[in-house]
Amino acid sequence: MSRIAYVNKAYVPHGQAAVHIEDRGYQFADGVYEVVTVFKGALIDEEPHLDRLDRSLNELEMAWPVARSALKVILRQVVRQNHLINGVVYFQVTRGVASRQFEYPKDIKSSLVVTAKHMRELVHGPDKNGISVVTLPDLRWQRCDIKTTGLLASCMTKQRAKESGFNDAWMIDRDGFITEGTSNNAWIVTHDDELITRDISNALLNGITRRRILKIAESQGLNIIERAFTPQEAKKAREAFISSASSFVKPVTKIDDCVLGNGQIGSLSEALSNGFLDFLENS
Amino acid sequence: MSRIAYVNKAYVPHGQAAVHIEDRGYQFADGVYEVVTVFKGALIDEEPHLDRLDRSLNELEMAWPVARSALKVILRQVVRQNHLINGVVYFQVTRGVASRQFEYPKDIKSSLVVTAKHMRELVHGPDKNGISVVTLPDLRWQRCDIKTTGLLASCMTKQRAKESGFNDAWMIDRDGFITEGTSNNAWIVTHDDELITRDISNALLNGITRRRILKIAESQGLNIIERAFTPQEAKKAREAFISSASSFVKPVTKIDDCVLGNGQIGSLSEALSNGFLDFLENS
Repeated sequence: MSRIAYVNKAYVPHGQAAVHIEDRGYQFADGVYEVVTVFKGALIDEEPHLDRLDRSLNELEMAWPVARSALKVILRQVVRQNHLINGVVYFQVTRGVASRQFEYPKDIKSSLVVTAKHMRELVHGPDKNGISVVTLPDLRWQRCDIKTTGLLASCMTKQRAKESGFNDAWMIDRDGFITEGTSNNAWIVTHDDELITRDISNALLNGITRRRILKIAESQGLNIIERAFTPQEAKKAREAFISSASSFVKPVTKIDDCVLGNGQIGSLSEALSNGFLDFLENS
Repeated sequence: MSRIAYVNKAYVPHGQAAVHIEDRGYQFADGVYEVVTVFKGALIDEEPHLDRLDRSLNELEMAWPVARSALKVILRQVVRQNHLINGVVYFQVTRGVASRQFEYPKDIKSSLVVTAKHMRELVHGPDKNGISVVTLPDLRWQRCDIKTTGLLASCMTKQRAKESGFNDAWMIDRDGFITEGTSNNAWIVTHDDELITRDISNALLNGITRRRILKIAESQGLNIIERAFTPQEAKKAREAFISSASSFVKPVTKIDDCVLGNGQIGSLSEALSNGFLDFLENS
């Protein structure tokens, strides 16, 4: 079965899906994107993802490539044409094609690309062993609240983590606080049963899965605190995890050279992970 | 006459020049570029541009798409096929096409795109009236020394400058010092005849035109100081200018609401501009 991508009004075989070399996404990273979980064929938290896309576009004074309702149809078409049951749908909007200049060109049409990806490993019970993260400087720009395709700093940091034998990195801002993972939000659970994740600002992305977990945590009666925390604090935590549209609640059992707890998923993380899987089943 | 672009081994009509949607330049801004002045058909300062490309590629652990000698042949072909006399040649190297993941994929071939642009306005005597710049926060990442295609912060800043009625912006770092213009280096001349431009670090690009001007200034016996300066200092300067591969020495005669000197090019800037045009004529 061949993969199908949507590129500017056409559904095309993935291998032939192309954009012009002067698409501003290619020359300037002048574009934004979203990744939406597809679970049993359903688009999970689609509306909040589209709301965030709308915010990203507004911040960049970029037009919607198609109406929101049309985008929803296209997303469903891509899911259907790829026979996607479990996985993610990725969509990227760039400012469009224009002769190279730094200021925003007028009267051009924004580009839309949509792809689908099967992920057999997407649906599983909680990951027992978890991942390791290394703390590294946050090299990114001052507007990490906008979900742009300018992801090179995160790529470099993830690569450095992998080369150091870790699964991912938690990035540290200039004031010594953790911002987030390279493509996920960071969470810790203290020995006092406090669930802590950084409050929203220009320093990090307002994760849709993050928000969903906050709701689940609230329904579980947890003590939630949204504030920045340091690597030192994280290493002393009872539990830690990351969240994203493809990892849900994934335990972090090692930070730098510190193993957390007994090196396995903690009870609160496990309850949240199960809560998230329940949410998926009922979506 | 139709424009011709080079894209991954093929010379193609500009309008049909395309790259795959999973080229990492498009999804991650995982690419670097150079812009080289073409003057009377000659590539100006080509070797330092290729040296800088080599440095950018090394910093990102990215492979040359073709041998350096082959790239030189391709650049000349693009100049020739476009009948380019005066203008710029733009070339972009990205890590290549791979299934989307943050860490660097292994065993993929980097992509190469080369375009040419005619600029009739390129060759002229010194610009007498100069441009205006507004000082705005530097939103960029921590590795501005690498010439990557992750240029959205510069685009946003240039756009904000234009919307405020200015020609460009000078960007201010967190410590209150000017880093550079949105696509050029920033210079001032004090009332004591000192020529000042910021010293090289991760905070700004090591401009090839900047380096050439330093050599010309040296040959003119000027008092050169490479250090950071503030907007306050710049507004009190006798002269100011920007430098880049397409603007050479371009006077700045207004910074925020302050007009410099008599609002026209200063004598030292004019001498450097003429020195640069002499250099071009003799290249």
